[in-house]
Amino acid sequence: MEKKEHLEQVRHSLAHLLAAAVMELWPSVMRAIGPAIDNGFYYDFEFKKPISENDFPKIEEKMREIYPTWSTFNKIKLSKKDALLEYKDNPYKKELIEEFSKEDVPLSFYQSGDYKDLCKGGHVKNMQSVDMNAFKLNRMAGAYWRGDEKNTMLTRIYGLAFHTKEELDSYIVQLEEAKKRDHRKLGKELDLFIFSELIGSGLPLFTPKGTVLREEINTFSQELRIKRGFLRVWTPHITKNDLYKVSGHWDKFGDELFLVTSQETKDQLVIKPMNCPHHQQIYASRPRSYRDLPIRYLETTTIYRDEKAGELLGLSRVRSITQDDSHIFCTPQQLEKEYEQVIEVVKEFYEKLDMPLRIRLSFCDPKTPEKYLGGQSLWESSQAILTNVVKKNNMDFFIAEGEAVFYGPKIDFMATDVLGREWQLATGQLDFVQPDRFNLTYTDLDGKDKTPIMIHFAVAGSLERFLSVYIEHTGGAFPLWLSPVQVKILPISEKHRKYAQEILGKLSDAQIRVELDGSDETLGKKIRLAKLEKVPYFLVLGDKEIKEKTVTLENRYGKPSESFSVEELLTKLKGEIEAKK
Amino acid sequence: MEKKEHLEQVRHSLAHLLAAAVMELWPSVMRAIGPAIDNGFYYDFEFKKPISENDFPKIEEKMREIYPTWSTFNKIKLSKKDALLEYKDNPYKKELIEEFSKEDVPLSFYQSGDYKDLCKGGHVKNMQSVDMNAFKLNRMAGAYWRGDEKNTMLTRIYGLAFHTKEELDSYIVQLEEAKKRDHRKLGKELDLFIFSELIGSGLPLFTPKGTVLREEINTFSQELRIKRGFLRVWTPHITKNDLYKVSGHWDKFGDELFLVTSQETKDQLVIKPMNCPHHQQIYASRPRSYRDLPIRYLETTTIYRDEKAGELLGLSRVRSITQDDSHIFCTPQQLEKEYEQVIEVVKEFYEKLDMPLRIRLSFCDPKTPEKYLGGQSLWESSQAILTNVVKKNNMDFFIAEGEAVFYGPKIDFMATDVLGREWQLATGQLDFVQPDRFNLTYTDLDGKDKTPIMIHFAVAGSLERFLSVYIEHTGGAFPLWLSPVQVKILPISEKHRKYAQEILGKLSDAQIRVELDGSDETLGKKIRLAKLEKVPYFLVLGDKEIKEKTVTLENRYGKPSESFSVEELLTKLKGEIEAKK
Repeated sequence: MEKKEHLEQVRHSLAHLLAAAVMELWPSVMRAIGPAIDNGFYYDFEFKKPISENDFPKIEEKMREIYPTWSTFNKIKLSKKDALLEYKDNPYKKELIEEFSKEDVPLSFYQSGDYKDLCKGGHVKNMQSVDMNAFKLNRMAGAYWRGDEKNTMLTRIYGLAFHTKEELDSYIVQLEEAKKRDHRKLGKELDLFIFSELIGSGLPLFTPKGTVLREEINTFSQELRIKRGFLRVWTPHITKNDLYKVSGHWDKFGDELFLVTSQETKDQLVIKPMNCPHHQQIYASRPRSYRDLPIRYLETTTIYRDEKAGELLGLSRVRSITQDDSHIFCTPQQLEKEYEQVIEVVKEFYEKLDMPLRIRLSFCDPKTPEKYLGGQSLWESSQAILTNVVKKNNMDFFIAEGEAVFYGPKIDFMATDVLGREWQLATGQLDFVQPDRFNLTYTDLDGKDKTPIMIHFAVAGSLERFLSVYIEHTGGAFPLWLSPVQVKILPISEKHRKYAQEILGKLSDAQIRVELDGSDETLGKKIRLAKLEKVPYFLVLGDKEIKEKTVTLENRYGKPSESFSVEELLTKLKGEIEAKK
Repeated sequence: MEKKEHLEQVRHSLAHLLAAAVMELWPSVMRAIGPAIDNGFYYDFEFKKPISENDFPKIEEKMREIYPTWSTFNKIKLSKKDALLEYKDNPYKKELIEEFSKEDVPLSFYQSGDYKDLCKGGHVKNMQSVDMNAFKLNRMAGAYWRGDEKNTMLTRIYGLAFHTKEELDSYIVQLEEAKKRDHRKLGKELDLFIFSELIGSGLPLFTPKGTVLREEINTFSQELRIKRGFLRVWTPHITKNDLYKVSGHWDKFGDELFLVTSQETKDQLVIKPMNCPHHQQIYASRPRSYRDLPIRYLETTTIYRDEKAGELLGLSRVRSITQDDSHIFCTPQQLEKEYEQVIEVVKEFYEKLDMPLRIRLSFCDPKTPEKYLGGQSLWESSQAILTNVVKKNNMDFFIAEGEAVFYGPKIDFMATDVLGREWQLATGQLDFVQPDRFNLTYTDLDGKDKTPIMIHFAVAGSLERFLSVYIEHTGGAFPLWLSPVQVKILPISEKHRKYAQEILGKLSDAQIRVELDGSDETLGKKIRLAKLEKVPYFLVLGDKEIKEKTVTLENRYGKPSESFSVEELLTKLKGEIEAKK
């Protein structure tokens, strides 16, 4: 058995133990359900009187008290009638019994010690194998019965659980760190983006500082591709729905689209949820020859998806999604070379941003070839090409059979952040289907019209989602080249302000993003503020600097200060920015 | 009487003469209406059998034949009954009579020679003062009666008319030139933008070449502002309509908006038709002090307006309008300095693009102060500031009283193209009203909360409309820095291709936009094609160049060719691009 599966059993078993403890402490409580989750478990209860997180130590103590009386989990089968009797005062369990019971098949319960619960199973073999130091109740929240806001609000008690205390402790440290780095919190503190009630949820507005981040990330992502022959295009944000009827997206994603009503025409419009059909219209606008291929279009543009309000979260899940998108049109013979470039670009991008990468090769499931379009030999040959390219580039990779979409295999790039969390951001996706639906062709060397292959390729993916990850990855201490404010100038007192202004002008002329703290605060306070703002460098200017015509450079990490002439400083800064340090 | 007014009389008189000639030639024709227009006149007819533009010489001859019999236009008054009798078989004139006749007031007709027409007047005193060499029938088109497509389609005959033959001739030359320069024609020939039926009318897609133009123009416009302290922001394309209810746009422009339906939430959304309310939300997101002002936000973003399908025209009138927008928030004391910067930016921009500017000061109408918000003294002082700034900068200007919008006076910049046509493109518009509606404030030196003044400022205006003008201004022969392809490499034959590839790589690495003509055509054909494509420079490469390690530079104007080493060439090109030549 895999370790992961066993951990799920530990968590599920602890959920039972939690319920047992709660029922001993509050005999009038009603149980609902209690599954294992990603980092532990929960159980939902209806309490007669509200409890609070202050009760957690008492509950944990009771769990430990009961623990020695539990060993194996024994399966008990009860008829529907007996099962209903078991829960005669509990409407939640009764509802579940009504739902689960089919004709005369008995219902399964599991029991350990004195505690019995309606349950499909999935526990540890013996409760005594569970390390009672490796769990912790950590959170309470309201939860509607069955997630429906028309139902009663229950009390959900969450627990964290791991195999060992070390794993639990390190997870708790990570949680604390993630809390400190929460991009929503940092977004406010560093003034990067805002939401407005008048504009709506899931629609962030980027302040000047946040816009610097967006723009720099995007420029980097575009530059890497432009020097490899990608060409910028521009397409509008709305379109007649006809476009998606041809592409096939209308049937698949019709209800995730924002519909647009024209009051002046009869056009049935939508806001674009992706750019591929638009880019294909540009490809289709003239005849193409094999000599013209590969054609690589690039466009950073905002698409809109109608997410449920409850699923929106900071920049992680938004309704306005700005993709650094591109589409490559090529011949089958060019596929390998194009994918090599895709990998090069993504590697260079994430290396610069200090995020290790591994590749998931999302392939078709060989057991169900009927689910995929394009023909088996095309799939096999292109999957071989992808595998080969990945190996040639010495990338860490794994194959995920059955993860491909129906129109082609893909390379998904998984980036790991400083907290060890893995994110799928960049992707390079083959498409055998759309070029055919749009009748795209090129005239080959033999004079025949053939259909090009398309690769969908995004580097950061969605700029918003990317920033949500990257802000947490860096904790808001961005490298110099990305920092909204690169240098802050701190004159020691009033009489040094004129010199500070002069330095400000020089840095600003050299296109350094620079700010001057012209307040009347003490130098100590000014330095503390600059550090809070996570500005990479700050310049302290006083009598000595004026006399020597220098600046004293300090940084957010408190490294020893250094003295420079303005020219030396500019050379240093420009060099570091150029090298994307 | 003004010359312009007299010219309108000439044109209207010629419309009568046209109808007289047509009726003599085709007695069964039915007349509708015939007004003077911008460059001449037209008359709408219902012909029993279709005629064609080949009939124009015959009609013009007949007009000249009738002409000597006309002198003054005599007014005749007829009762409604007599008027209806006059046109007993003509439903168009009858409809007009029904509409114009009020109770028992007689209807006015005008007669010269034997021709009489229902008409409100506005003719020359004597037909013999009209120069019969200064008009020309130039165009025929279908036109629905009263512009309604449910009505009969009539035949509209257009004539050009001026005071003198010289004016007519020069106008015809200008028309021919404008036709050759039509941006829709050049857009296709130079592969700059396309339209797609699947996407919809008024929604252009920009190809790689057109996107270079957009981007370069936008970058220039932004750079001019960024070095003057403007900060980029980013805002989404959709918003709850609440935002426009607060701003007041909902009541004013509600029916020009694209409405957006969310299938997942109850939000009532629209696509933004302007950016000012969005930018104000960013301003409003933190407390501001007088020390923070002026705050200058800049964003190039696409807004959408629901134009009538019939009004859409190439890039001149589109539904996707990309504005190089900005908004300045400042104190009244800062207004003058901010406007000085506005003028500096616009001057530098249009000078570089070789388009002379003059300024229209759009002020309030002092006779109707009740139409304007903000109070008379605020208007007077700010109008004085605008006038003063314009004078100080030695700008050619005129004051247009009554052209201001209700919320503040504005500076409109009028740019003249190479055909002498004047276009209102850039604008700098004061706004006393919106900051108040959104409760924007700053804490002044005296500790009191005050409302900032806002300036709406766009340089190119709409990139699409700007490009429609600029493509025609240049006839598609863009300056080097704007050219989608800056250099084309023309190897004389197959054996020079390797060297050509090498040069291509060097130019490309130096970020020159370069293309290689790898076809098997003769050099002559390659050169002709490069000229048709209006590429500024092309390099001819043959045996001599390979031997001497040089390139031979030619240009689209056929100036004598020059020989350079690659390094020399790069220095020359980079210098010219840097200087925006």
